[in-house]
Amino acid sequence: MSSFLRSASRLRPTVSRAVARPSYAPAVATPFSRQLASSTQPFIKDEPSAPTLKCQIPGPESSKAIEKLSKVFDTRSLNMMADYRNSHGNYIADLDGNVLLDVYAQIASIPVGYNNEALLRAASSPEMASAIINRPALGNFPQHDWAEILETGILKVAPKGLNQVFTGQSGSDANELAYKAAFMWKRRMERGGPDVEFTEEEMQSCMNNAKPGAPELSILSFKAGFHGRLFGSLSTTRSKPIHKLDIPAFDWPQAPFPSCKYPLDQYAKENAEEEKRCLEETERLLTTYHNPPAAIIIEPIQSEGGDNHASPAFFRGLREITKKHKVLMIVDEVQTGVGATGKFWAHEHWNLSEPPDMVTFSKKAQTAGYYFGNDELRPNKPYRQFNTWMGDPARALLFRAIIQEIERLNLVENTAVTGEYLYNGVERLAQQYPKEILNLRGKGQGTFIAWDSPRRDDILKKAKSVGINVGGSGASAVRLRPMLIFQKHHADIFLEGLEKILKS
Amino acid sequence: MSSFLRSASRLRPTVSRAVARPSYAPAVATPFSRQLASSTQPFIKDEPSAPTLKCQIPGPESSKAIEKLSKVFDTRSLNMMADYRNSHGNYIADLDGNVLLDVYAQIASIPVGYNNEALLRAASSPEMASAIINRPALGNFPQHDWAEILETGILKVAPKGLNQVFTGQSGSDANELAYKAAFMWKRRMERGGPDVEFTEEEMQSCMNNAKPGAPELSILSFKAGFHGRLFGSLSTTRSKPIHKLDIPAFDWPQAPFPSCKYPLDQYAKENAEEEKRCLEETERLLTTYHNPPAAIIIEPIQSEGGDNHASPAFFRGLREITKKHKVLMIVDEVQTGVGATGKFWAHEHWNLSEPPDMVTFSKKAQTAGYYFGNDELRPNKPYRQFNTWMGDPARALLFRAIIQEIERLNLVENTAVTGEYLYNGVERLAQQYPKEILNLRGKGQGTFIAWDSPRRDDILKKAKSVGINVGGSGASAVRLRPMLIFQKHHADIFLEGLEKILKS
Repeated sequence: MSSFLRSASRLRPTVSRAVARPSYAPAVATPFSRQLASSTQPFIKDEPSAPTLKCQIPGPESSKAIEKLSKVFDTRSLNMMADYRNSHGNYIADLDGNVLLDVYAQIASIPVGYNNEALLRAASSPEMASAIINRPALGNFPQHDWAEILETGILKVAPKGLNQVFTGQSGSDANELAYKAAFMWKRRMERGGPDVEFTEEEMQSCMNNAKPGAPELSILSFKAGFHGRLFGSLSTTRSKPIHKLDIPAFDWPQAPFPSCKYPLDQYAKENAEEEKRCLEETERLLTTYHNPPAAIIIEPIQSEGGDNHASPAFFRGLREITKKHKVLMIVDEVQTGVGATGKFWAHEHWNLSEPPDMVTFSKKAQTAGYYFGNDELRPNKPYRQFNTWMGDPARALLFRAIIQEIERLNLVENTAVTGEYLYNGVERLAQQYPKEILNLRGKGQGTFIAWDSPRRDDILKKAKSVGINVGGSGASAVRLRPMLIFQKHHADIFLEGLEKILKS
Repeated sequence: MSSFLRSASRLRPTVSRAVARPSYAPAVATPFSRQLASSTQPFIKDEPSAPTLKCQIPGPESSKAIEKLSKVFDTRSLNMMADYRNSHGNYIADLDGNVLLDVYAQIASIPVGYNNEALLRAASSPEMASAIINRPALGNFPQHDWAEILETGILKVAPKGLNQVFTGQSGSDANELAYKAAFMWKRRMERGGPDVEFTEEEMQSCMNNAKPGAPELSILSFKAGFHGRLFGSLSTTRSKPIHKLDIPAFDWPQAPFPSCKYPLDQYAKENAEEEKRCLEETERLLTTYHNPPAAIIIEPIQSEGGDNHASPAFFRGLREITKKHKVLMIVDEVQTGVGATGKFWAHEHWNLSEPPDMVTFSKKAQTAGYYFGNDELRPNKPYRQFNTWMGDPARALLFRAIIQEIERLNLVENTAVTGEYLYNGVERLAQQYPKEILNLRGKGQGTFIAWDSPRRDDILKKAKSVGINVGGSGASAVRLRPMLIFQKHHADIFLEGLEKILKS
């Protein structure tokens, strides 16, 4: 029996529940470990009980399909040719019959499992079919029940203090819409209120992309942050050169994100000092940068940039200095939102005295947009924040079904509980393999767990050979981004697979 | 009988076909006009035969729904609270039982009618439900049949010479993806080829949004052009101040778009001179602008900017100078594409010697992206042109069904033929009401017809009172953007309604 299971048994006595082992597992099973799996019933009835490995990935059928696709589509970033017909719950299948436990989940964007029955019902409804084929220009011709769809869906989970939403189509799009709202708000303040008309000079200069109509304002972001890849959002993205090379960018400032030591609580004093340094530098940039920031944008946990964490105190500090200097605070919850950290929104961990000004979402919401609470963030005139589709009712209907499923199965709490179990399991492995698992992070953050690995890419690749699909972030992090239906018995399979790789 | 119908009868003898009159029509019907309607059978079986007006729009039910929606959603741009359950074919319904002939079609984005049966079948299929609930990260985990979906759909209608596609989510997104491809291509050329590695300086400077890594290159667009509202696309949009005010923009050049006189063929000589002037100025900017253009972007017909046309010779001239100066030519077919001009792609009207480098699409395709033909427009490394979803298989499936419906009903030809009929009808009205219909344009461009009106906003508003939903563009244009299933009998209803308004 592996040591993490031994330790787990001490911490969490569990009743027996048969969890089949991955089919690659040795014949000499570890019967005791099976008993430890979990006391919870599986959420998904038709889910496989373990990964199945038929051949190396990509196998012959996948290779054929990849070759065909590469003629018309760039496949150099292809990870796995998927067969969603045979994917269920936490398990993703390929064309060769391989079925992997998926803790990457379409770059953290599948919320409640492949072929989820409740979502299938929503997606097969006449209401959904109508939304698909009669896609409205929502700003001009909204459908009769758009308010109800918002209120029973997207707005039902609005972060505290934010009761309005502007819908979009992707995380990048959501962030850029929020930036536009911020710029309009800032200029309205500078101008002296919503009723002050635009000047002739503003109207003419904006048509030439010149100030004062196109102002030299900025959005402040943080080093290693990722906020998307369109031109405005990419100007705030500071993750990797490959994301930014050759693309023109705005002259906008970046503040340092704290380089904390993990686990955060063990290094509280050093981390507090580092965070203080970063807050001071942020404040300095907010007050002195030549293109003044209208807003800051920050992720609760920097995800693409390497899974970097900071303490709630740091974020509370940001809320204070943004208030002090009349700069908006946009929280980018594109990857952290919708339950993954054990709260519905990750910024709920912070206990802010005042809510953020805007919170953006996408990925697990399967739709996108930004929440806001302040009427001043509605532009002073119509058609300023506008586009043809302004979101997608079909995707809003799906998010509503996702929310219902999250409520029905209590999945945010599940993620908190399973996350703790998973974290403890990885922590035990880190004690056993201290050169392999460094800077483990994500304690108390649901399943939003990561660590640094000196042979990260090798680990990600080998994971497939033990039946696991897992992704990385930043230069050296292995990031776990399982779905909200990830349970203790999945964690056991994952931990067992991980140990197998670390041993190899 | 109204004069346009009289004239039509001379031009186009038609067989009798009963077309019911709008219910607002006077009891003294004009029987002869009914005979003129069209020799074609209606494409849509369950379509109303005429508009129905129950009350002023918005009626009491709509007003209630608007009030409710305005609490959570900006309704200041709301045109009509729609009821898509009761909308069919060319007709859009509201909550009060009003049913209007829709020649605006969700800002030109509904291709084959509301509640189209063929699309409904596609949207109700298990394949669609799976695409909705198992949305893949296409760049990493494409679904097994993605190549087939592309080949039997999006790529089947690829413009001549362009056999690859990069899928996106909106017109703005499609254009920005094309811009990114252009910048990467340009820097690759400057660098000396795909195998020249990025320098350390490039990699470091791009992280600071500074050159050389984030180069000071540009996209040249044309005055009054519209290419979207994200930060890069908005920097190329030059339609109206309200689209651009308060939003930071890149220092990118704009060339003059020809101010042609209409009809184009009557003013061939003056227009040729104007176009020559614009080509010269474009060439000057391409060769001298301080932020050198990597590409130009242009609409075949400037749509949001006021329905501005130019001759095929002008566009051929652009193709020549872009080739000469090694600048890419991106044709923005977001509004003109998918049949509306009587060709599948509007740029087919130009007879270019070489295809454009990229063609962007959205709206009637109900999905988005850009076509390209040159392998050099694939970035030299993976993950440079990448995002989580990279399009949407659900929307790609819908576009495939749209294409099949267009082929089945021969809708591109229908639009050419109906467009000519519609144009002739408006032309006759222009002769009758020369102060009301100015600068009629769109001859030979399918139903992509527009004119200037000295009381445009009044006309748009009054149109509802005669059962028609129609939109404007630019400062003073009435633009017709009917669906591809718009037939002669719809044109008759439209023309009759228009005459009624002009008389008023």
